[in-house]
Amino acid sequence: MGEQAKLIGIVGGSGSGKTSIAHELVRRLQTQGVHVLMLDMDAYYAPLEVVRHRFGGREVNWDHPHAFDLELMANHLASLRRGQPIRKPIYDFTVSDRVGWEEPLQPSRVVILEGLLIFALPELREQLDVKIFVDTDADIRILRRIQRDTRERGRTVDSVIQQYLEFVRPMHLEFVEPSKRWADLIVPTGAENEKALDMITRYSLGLLGPEA
Amino acid sequence: MGEQAKLIGIVGGSGSGKTSIAHELVRRLQTQGVHVLMLDMDAYYAPLEVVRHRFGGREVNWDHPHAFDLELMANHLASLRRGQPIRKPIYDFTVSDRVGWEEPLQPSRVVILEGLLIFALPELREQLDVKIFVDTDADIRILRRIQRDTRERGRTVDSVIQQYLEFVRPMHLEFVEPSKRWADLIVPTGAENEKALDMITRYSLGLLGPEA
Repeated sequence: MGEQAKLIGIVGGSGSGKTSIAHELVRRLQTQGVHVLMLDMDAYYAPLEVVRHRFGGREVNWDHPHAFDLELMANHLASLRRGQPIRKPIYDFTVSDRVGWEEPLQPSRVVILEGLLIFALPELREQLDVKIFVDTDADIRILRRIQRDTRERGRTVDSVIQQYLEFVRPMHLEFVEPSKRWADLIVPTGAENEKALDMITRYSLGLLGPEA
Repeated sequence: MGEQAKLIGIVGGSGSGKTSIAHELVRRLQTQGVHVLMLDMDAYYAPLEVVRHRFGGREVNWDHPHAFDLELMANHLASLRRGQPIRKPIYDFTVSDRVGWEEPLQPSRVVILEGLLIFALPELREQLDVKIFVDTDADIRILRRIQRDTRERGRTVDSVIQQYLEFVRPMHLEFVEPSKRWADLIVPTGAENEKALDMITRYSLGLLGPEA
């Protein structure tokens, strides 16, 4: 049985900078000698067969809770909190399906979770020790998404816009934005917010007790 | 010449809980042996004659920047940052006027400033080392204000509502709410937010360097 982990959740809209903040937080904690595990909600997409069944023939909305295996993710969070190892699913985006399981992961003292829906879903939210919402204006977020998806994923601007208007934006308004209400702390302007990052890092170290 | 102070600004609407947070932060830092000075913007109302002149016969709007002696407050912040003593004005609310000056105050390592307009006014905002916005829903804020002003200040509910609609709310929308944009950190739900308070306390201690 490993260490009982403290769970830090980081939520924000697409393009908010939440992933950069999560990575930078991991880096800073590791610099301080703290063992950190990072869980991305994307690994917990449900198997394709399950997703197809849930959407019943309609086009799959990958930003909707129904696209995820929440039961598995909630069980994994509970295990990490108790100090028990987990086996993360391996998700292959090229086939949109779960393709296997990683080797068992021993729990760390801190687990950083990031994802769109982590605060919106009580099964996940209620297990978090700290909830941080990265709040970036919608125009900045869509501009970042356009740049990322056209440069790194070879998408056209039109296809990014269409997906944004059809799926990303409605799910943001329905699930992500209202879940800001659950945050312990709201970080404006994303990853360049040095002061907020410093505050979260110090607090996370403090969570681990005086010996950290 | 005293210590060069770090300036922590705390802004939020009327009834947001900013004053409770500021006091609790002072208490926690003092418990850690840190000498803290607290400045409330209310002490920096301009002399009554100046205010009357500025409002030119109209009813004075005490939530508007014109009601304050910004030059004095900005000079005091600059002095504290340089490690120079200040003499705070003594403001008497019963006559709505400045009635004298306090004995010289030696600068402390940390100065906590609170007030509605501290982020809205660049002369003040640009001198702050950390900017914290306390974000509480408008309905909760007005309910707190009604309870406080009827219980502690002997006001009627109607007079609180009238003042709120005529002065407090318009100034909130014009100056306070937009100044959230300048915050390094946004604290939801006011003074009961234990995690946010802990984060800010640790960060403030960190500002003082490794010897703190």
